[in-house]
Amino acid sequence: MDRRIRDHAETLVDWSARIERGDNVVVRVGEGAHDLGVAVAEQLGERGANLLACYDSEELTSAYLRAHDGEFDADPDYERVLYERADSVLSLRGTRNTRESAAVPEDTQREYARTREAIREARLNTDWVSTVHPTRALAQQAGMGIDAYRDFVYDAVLRDWAELATEMEQLKEVLDGGREVRIRKDDATDLTLFIDGRTAVNSTASVAYDSHNLPSGEVFTAPYDTAGQVVFDVPMTIRGTRVEDVRLVFKDGVVVDWEAASGGEIIESILETDGGARQLGELGVGMNRGITRPTDQILFDEKMAGTVHLALGRAYDACLPDGESGVDSAVHVDLITDMRAAGTTLTVDGEVIQRDGVFRWEDGFSP
Amino acid sequence: MDRRIRDHAETLVDWSARIERGDNVVVRVGEGAHDLGVAVAEQLGERGANLLACYDSEELTSAYLRAHDGEFDADPDYERVLYERADSVLSLRGTRNTRESAAVPEDTQREYARTREAIREARLNTDWVSTVHPTRALAQQAGMGIDAYRDFVYDAVLRDWAELATEMEQLKEVLDGGREVRIRKDDATDLTLFIDGRTAVNSTASVAYDSHNLPSGEVFTAPYDTAGQVVFDVPMTIRGTRVEDVRLVFKDGVVVDWEAASGGEIIESILETDGGARQLGELGVGMNRGITRPTDQILFDEKMAGTVHLALGRAYDACLPDGESGVDSAVHVDLITDMRAAGTTLTVDGEVIQRDGVFRWEDGFSP
Repeated sequence: MDRRIRDHAETLVDWSARIERGDNVVVRVGEGAHDLGVAVAEQLGERGANLLACYDSEELTSAYLRAHDGEFDADPDYERVLYERADSVLSLRGTRNTRESAAVPEDTQREYARTREAIREARLNTDWVSTVHPTRALAQQAGMGIDAYRDFVYDAVLRDWAELATEMEQLKEVLDGGREVRIRKDDATDLTLFIDGRTAVNSTASVAYDSHNLPSGEVFTAPYDTAGQVVFDVPMTIRGTRVEDVRLVFKDGVVVDWEAASGGEIIESILETDGGARQLGELGVGMNRGITRPTDQILFDEKMAGTVHLALGRAYDACLPDGESGVDSAVHVDLITDMRAAGTTLTVDGEVIQRDGVFRWEDGFSP
Repeated sequence: MDRRIRDHAETLVDWSARIERGDNVVVRVGEGAHDLGVAVAEQLGERGANLLACYDSEELTSAYLRAHDGEFDADPDYERVLYERADSVLSLRGTRNTRESAAVPEDTQREYARTREAIREARLNTDWVSTVHPTRALAQQAGMGIDAYRDFVYDAVLRDWAELATEMEQLKEVLDGGREVRIRKDDATDLTLFIDGRTAVNSTASVAYDSHNLPSGEVFTAPYDTAGQVVFDVPMTIRGTRVEDVRLVFKDGVVVDWEAASGGEIIESILETDGGARQLGELGVGMNRGITRPTDQILFDEKMAGTVHLALGRAYDACLPDGESGVDSAVHVDLITDMRAAGTTLTVDGEVIQRDGVFRWEDGFSP
């Protein structure tokens, strides 16, 4: 077994999920994640935790849903009680075909998800962590060979997370104490976001930080107002469509003008979802230096060091003061700007925090 | 997908497990049983049953157990409540390596099983069915190529079960009303078993018949006394050792002499387990005509039409009158005699029921 698979499992079990002796652990093994499943089982055995493996297969789910008449049972309780009694749920994603569900009608998928809402809630009430095992299907989506893709995934996952958490804490402190964030890049981007009173989240791939994805590596908060314009120059696929160079213009916190080099119809459809979809629910700063290139998977791309992402739509509760509601919307769509270009800056209350993708606490930063 | 995989799934869901709309179904997918898992998911979708897939992987279990210190949690309740709320558990066995657990100490396996007794009991309290998907590992153990092995498995599984159940009912009636069963084959076998007061089970691969294995196809009862001698000429592997031509001599229901052409040390160890291990707990008659050759897997071999099997050790409760206890033992080891040879007979109270492997109700039987 690739030594890195063991290291991945150890990071997941120790740093991310904080598994202890006697914990009831559900491991959801993706179709292509068998090898990581074996490594995780070994780690759980070493720690004396309990193991129940579920099979998270797109092919099974797709066959089931295509055959079903759509009248789903409301709240199948056997799966819910399983999660209610579980301490941790480790999801080892690793699809063998990212388009397996293409033949399942969207209505059916939505209705199935709706009737499983209580199951989902029970799962999210555990110390859950979701991670990714590198499969050929994911390499294909990333436009990479499997060997290079494995290197990519393990570079992103096998970090010194404690050290990164400490570094990220510095940015969190700046954002927590700050009022006005400004992003400037060449002539096209000059955006100001207001964040005073909001709380930044140090998302460092551990339940101890209320962070549930491995890899992670971002600090994010929820702006309450936005003005100016921004171009998102990291391409991505949204709802199956390639989206490139989206430009948004904000006034009083709302998108008042927009264009896109490609995928404009998707952006239009997003903006028309509801009122919240024309506002920004999230400002996130990628800080994972193991991720050096986009791979068209948002969970990796948005963590890339030297990028900033902004989300149209819903804000995360963790960023809001008690009792205050942030942007509300049915959507939350992240868009990414690469800050690693000469003359690009991220400032908070006039102070330069990042220049050309380098933070002020890093070597080589020239204020 | 091989049409036979779909037929297998349909037989499992309809004939064997009698799945209905709204049933909570746990599908335990073996490492090599993915394709059958997809077909079963499709059948469950069609019927509007609920689906939760577990991953029954020898490699995960083996890695877990090898890493564990052996101090297992008593009764991990999350898995138990899952089965307590389930209506049916479908186990799709399909190992990729029949020897995967070779490196796990037997003590560890035993202790793990012991602490999971309540989970096992909850599972056996559902309408459970266990079946086998043909894998290369199982073909290898059977000494066959994968194509021939697939033909073998589907011939055994895809029977007209309703018709076979009716035929088997005839034998059950004979045994239920009979007192003295006699098995004779050449000079080496002449055994008499007493069964009056005992109830035969029509094991026809359906929970409706309290029969939980697919394929099945045997009628069995529990003798209370045995005399004479028998040679088991169908070779098999028991506890990793090849066992051939075991000869047992009974007096007053107990083994008083024995020999074996090979594997004698295993037979000796079985006989020395406890008092019950020297008695016969089961007389079974194979009636599945889809199984025409032994493949060194007892669940197939013992169902082979034209064979009789006898088990040293524990009797099944279903065969015993209320309140009466049969042979009690820590073991239940089946041994098989091929009845398809000239001059071989199975008689009940002096009446020939089977000659040369052919029942009296079959064409070609000459009384």
